[in-house]
Order: sequence, then structure tokens, then C-alpha cells
Amino acid sequence: MPTTLHHHPLCPQSRFIRLALAEYGITPELIEEKPFERDPTFLALDPAGETPVLIDASGLIVPGAAAIAEFLDETGGAALGDNRLLPEDPAARVEVRRLVQWFTQKFYGEVSNFLVTEKVYKRFMSTGGGAPDMELVRAARANIRYHLRYIGYLCAQRNWLAGERLTYADLAAAAHISVVDFLGDVPWDEDETAKLWYARVKSRKSFRALLADRVPGISPPPVYADLDF
Amino acid sequence: MPTTLHHHPLCPQSRFIRLALAEYGITPELIEEKPFERDPTFLALDPAGETPVLIDASGLIVPGAAAIAEFLDETGGAALGDNRLLPEDPAARVEVRRLVQWFTQKFYGEVSNFLVTEKVYKRFMSTGGGAPDMELVRAARANIRYHLRYIGYLCAQRNWLAGERLTYADLAAAAHISVVDFLGDVPWDEDETAKLWYARVKSRKSFRALLADRVPGISPPPVYADLDF
Repeated sequence: MPTTLHHHPLCPQSRFIRLALAEYGITPELIEEKPFERDPTFLALDPAGETPVLIDASGLIVPGAAAIAEFLDETGGAALGDNRLLPEDPAARVEVRRLVQWFTQKFYGEVSNFLVTEKVYKRFMSTGGGAPDMELVRAARANIRYHLRYIGYLCAQRNWLAGERLTYADLAAAAHISVVDFLGDVPWDEDETAKLWYARVKSRKSFRALLADRVPGISPPPVYADLDF
Repeated sequence: MPTTLHHHPLCPQSRFIRLALAEYGITPELIEEKPFERDPTFLALDPAGETPVLIDASGLIVPGAAAIAEFLDETGGAALGDNRLLPEDPAARVEVRRLVQWFTQKFYGEVSNFLVTEKVYKRFMSTGGGAPDMELVRAARANIRYHLRYIGYLCAQRNWLAGERLTYADLAAAAHISVVDFLGDVPWDEDETAKLWYARVKSRKSFRALLADRVPGISPPPVYADLDF
């Protein structure tokens, strides 16, 4: 069976894994889920009911972005050689995991989850999600500024977020930012170094499918798919 | 230098790592932090400012329970042989990581973080944390019930949470529950199988230091340290 990814197009955690799969050269069959609907079929696959969930070629079900990233490294990381997304050196692995946690948990909790829930998921809830809570939207827009400065700070010292090569840290960060960018909420004037880093990640072949994503009723700003924004 | 763990005695994520270290036979030097104070010295160690942070014998700084667990497995897992806390088999690793995510993120977000923040951290904030938000405390007390039933469901089919042997899944789950138990908020009558599982984890030598923890002004109920509760 083909590798399958249960995802939502604007779920930042799913986007991280879509980027990772593309970097491994794996083209998954994509199945769109609405994680906010608590669909019994999806809950049977993963009791936590959260996207993404990967089903690998052998049928093994792997739920959760962090666990999927570890699984992909364990099964396919060595084959990437020097381009391994979770490098072999113990200290480098620690730094990559620290930053993956930063974006998949901290940035998610302070920025991307607020925006995707309030501006996207609520719109598609069958029970009627109601209007976005603008207090949460404003909090996210304020919080993103220090994250952009932190990215700029890291990239002023290193070629990529976690070191001299592209790693899971860049993919996780760019995936979360891409959702905010889709919603027009990235203040790109905040940090020039962060912007240049994002332009480099965004130019990768692995990013193309994300830039082509569209969601009914929500149009991304022109800057979203522009590689020279 | 000795292995050092920056922690808070009632931080459930720190307790998970204290249990793990004890299972590896490592006795760390413990340094108590107040993660809610945003102390600059601690932030210099880990910009995320969250407990736990491990500093290993070589001086490598490893922040975050999940990253520490992976690091300990990579550096010391093989030596545990059949008792490896993150088993070698790929499907078993996926199941352990799924349940570690469940307790360190889902249970934390729905139960243990509410209780420790409202009932413990607020009490020790130098700026005055105010009274516990009883709505959040009640939400946590309601939410824990389905988690106990889920533990009971898993242990009715398996010897331990993730399979036939003790793994990180049991340590993460028991660490989070132990904090709730310290605060007297575990409804032990909810699920007999879950209670028997917890009694087994609690009886391990690695658990002893946790049962001896005391915090100024908060007394755990007698059941907390009782191995035959």
C-alpha cells in the first residue's frame, strides 16, 4: 500500500510532515481530515484525534508530528547521508529536537493554533464555530513578533536554524509560519534575517505543494506563494 | 561533572524524567527552578524557560522531557537490554511515543497543567498568583476520569501501558498522575484496573524519591505515599 497521510491542508503540524516526506522523496496519498469534528473513523485510527497521522507502506499507524519525524528518521534518515534531517551527532540532535519542540509546541500554543482554530477551523465546523475570537487573534499577532526575532537571531549565527544544514527544525518552523502567512498574519517587516531564511525554505521543491494549497472561502494574500516576497 | 536536572518537584514533565533517570540508574544533582518566574539564569540555559532541563556529564544541555527521553535512549537505551524504555521494535517505539505524547501533551493540557498551575505555581509566584481558578480545577477533575478509563482499557489488554514491558509510556503517565494524586484530585474509584497499574508503577524503586517530595504549605493526602492505597 502507498504511504498515506491523514492531514488538514492548513494544520501546521501536518504541513511539517508533508515537508519532511517531500524531503525524503516520499509522495504520500493525502486524506483530508477535519480534526475538529471528532469523526469516529478518524478516532479509530488515532484515539487522540489529531492530525497528522501517517500510515506507512507496511500499514503501521504513526500518529503525531514529533513521533512521525522520529519514525521517518529511524527508517529513512541514514539514507539521506549528510542531508539527514535529524543529524547523527548527539549535540546536533538535541538542538534540532529543542527547536522542533519550540515550534510544534510553543509557537503552536502562542501563535499558529490560535490563528488556524479561530480563522479556519471555526469556519468549517458543522455545528457552527461562530466568529473568530479577536482577542486570541490579536494575541497571536503580537506573539509572532518575538518568534520572528528569535529566528533572525539564530540565522544570524548559523546557515540554518539548528546549524549548518537544513534540518527538521527549519521544516517545523517554516510549516507553522506558512499557515500564518496563508492567513496574512506574518509581519514580514519585523526581521529581515528571518524573512531571508523563510524565502530560502520556501524556494525548496518540497515546499511547492504547500504553496498550491487552497481552502474554500479563504484566499491567501499574493505574498503567500510569491518566492520573492 | 555530575548529571544535573533543573526541575520543579511538582512539575509533571520533570517527574517523568526523574523516574526515567532512576530507571537508568542515574542519580542526578537536582536544582529546583520556578519556571513561572522567568528567571534570567534559567532562561539563559533554555530560552523556552520550561522544566525539565538536563545537563549531562559532558555539559550538554538537553531541554524538554520528550527530547531528554530520546537522548537518554540514544545514549543509554541499548545497555538496558530487554528492559529498554523505548523498545527497539519500530511498531513498539511508535506505540510508546504515541502514549508519551498522550500524557505529556494531552493529559498535561487537559489535567495536570491546570492543577499544578492553579494549585501550586500560583501560590509561589513572587508577584502573587491569586486564587486558583476553580473552573479550570473542576475541568481538570472532570477530564481525568476518561484518562483513567483509557489507562484501564489499555492495561486490560496488556501487562503495561504500551505492551508487555514497562516503558517510557508508563513513566510519563505515572509521573503526570502522581502530581494530581499529590494534590488529592485522582478519583481512584473510577477505574480499578488503572488503580492496580498505578500501584505497580508506584511500588518501583525509581518512584521512591517522588513519594518523599514535600512542598511548603501543601500536604499530600495519606493515599499519596501509601503503596497499598
